[in-house]
Amino acid sequence: MLASEYKEIEIYMLNQMRDSAHDKHHVYRVLNFALDIAAVTDISDPDVLLAACLLHDIGREMQFSDINICHAQAGGDMAYEYLLSRRWPSGRASHVKECVSTHRFRKNNRPKSIEAQILFDADKLDACGALGIARTLIYGGQVAEPLYLLDDDEKIIAGGGGEEMSSFMQEYNYKLKNVYTAFYTKRAKEIARKWQKTAISFYDGLHMEITSNYENGAKKHLTALLERT
Amino acid sequence: MLASEYKEIEIYMLNQMRDSAHDKHHVYRVLNFALDIAAVTDISDPDVLLAACLLHDIGREMQFSDINICHAQAGGDMAYEYLLSRRWPSGRASHVKECVSTHRFRKNNRPKSIEAQILFDADKLDACGALGIARTLIYGGQVAEPLYLLDDDEKIIAGGGGEEMSSFMQEYNYKLKNVYTAFYTKRAKEIARKWQKTAISFYDGLHMEITSNYENGAKKHLTALLERT
Repeated sequence: MLASEYKEIEIYMLNQMRDSAHDKHHVYRVLNFALDIAAVTDISDPDVLLAACLLHDIGREMQFSDINICHAQAGGDMAYEYLLSRRWPSGRASHVKECVSTHRFRKNNRPKSIEAQILFDADKLDACGALGIARTLIYGGQVAEPLYLLDDDEKIIAGGGGEEMSSFMQEYNYKLKNVYTAFYTKRAKEIARKWQKTAISFYDGLHMEITSNYENGAKKHLTALLERT
Repeated sequence: MLASEYKEIEIYMLNQMRDSAHDKHHVYRVLNFALDIAAVTDISDPDVLLAACLLHDIGREMQFSDINICHAQAGGDMAYEYLLSRRWPSGRASHVKECVSTHRFRKNNRPKSIEAQILFDADKLDACGALGIARTLIYGGQVAEPLYLLDDDEKIIAGGGGEEMSSFMQEYNYKLKNVYTAFYTKRAKEIARKWQKTAISFYDGLHMEITSNYENGAKKHLTALLERT
C-alpha cells in the first residue's frame, strides 16, 4: 500500500471516530498488535490487514445510536463501500469486509481468512492483561456502570451479567476472564499468556479488598455504636 | 448515637450526593474502614466519627460546579450548619467540621484529633490497592481523561502532571503511588501495606504492555509494508 493511501484511510477512520477520543488509541494498538503477529505469520494480503485494522471499529458510532446495530456488521458494510469508492477491486474490499465483520466474538460468525483471524486476535489482545482491565473500567466510567453490585448479604455479585453488563466485576467474569482461550495465532496466544497473570492478580486483589471492607465486622461495630444510646 | 439519628444523617448525605452514584459507595467504604480502625484505636467521640464519615464528601457537588471551591472546606461548613440545625452542641459540630475539612491531603491543613485522623486514613485507604486503581480509572472515564499520553518517541509520559492531571499514568505517579506513606493510624498502615503490591503489579504490568505494544517493531513493520509499492 502506498503511504499516501494509508494516510487517506487513516483520515477516513479518524473522521468516523471523532466523538470518542479513546477508540482512536485502541485502533492504533490493534494495528500494532496485528503488525507484530503478521511479522511471524504467513499472510497473503498485508494491505487488506492494514485497511481492516484501521477500519475495524468505524461502525461503533452507529451501534452507540442504536444498540440493535452490530458495529462489526455495520463497519464491514461501511468499509466495503468506502474501499469501492477508492477504486479497490470488489474481491479485496470484500476481504476487508470479512475481517471487519468477524472481529467481534460471535459463535456463529468466526473469522476465516488469516487476515481476519489476525485482526480478531489483535482486537482481543487489547482486552487482555492490565490494558483490558483499564479499558473496561474507563468504559464503565463513561457509561456509569458501577464497579460492583452487592447482594442482600453484602457479598459481591460476580456471576449473572450476560451481554448487558451491570458491573465491572460481572463483566470480568463474563468476558475478560475468558478472552485468553479465544486466540487463533500462536503469537497472540503467547502475548496473552504473558499478560494474564496481571489481570488475575488485579481481579483477585480487588475482590479481596472489597470483600474485606464489608466483612471486617464493620456492621457489627456500627450496630454496637448505634445501640450505645 | 441513636439509630434513628444515624438514619437522618445518612438520608441528608444521600440527598447531597444524588447526582453521583459512585460516591455513595465510597462513603460506605470509608465508614467501614473507619469502624475497622476505630475498633482497635482509642477514640473519644464515636458519634463525631460516624457523622464525619457520612458527611465527608457532601461538598463534592459544590467543587464540581466551581473548581475553586475545596470540597473539604465547603463540606466542613455544610456539616457544621446541618448538625447545628439538628441541635448538636456547637463544640461537637465543630469537631465534625474539623474532621471533614482536614480529610483531604493538604500540607497546611492536617487532621489533628484522632477522629479526624481516622477519617483521613479511611478516605486514603480507598485510594490504595486495586480499589484505588479502579476508582481512578472509572473517574477517568467520567471526565474523559485518557489512560496514557505518549511523547514524540511514543514513550509513555509518566511524570509531570500535578494537581490538574492529564492521564491515568501521570495520576498514578503523582498521587496513588505516594498515598501509602500518608497514614496516621497503625491499622490503616497495616491494610495499606497489604494492598500496595496489587497496585504496583498492575501499574508495572500496564506500563510494560503499553510500551511493548508501541515498541515491538510495529512502526518498522508498517514502514516496510508501506514501502512495498
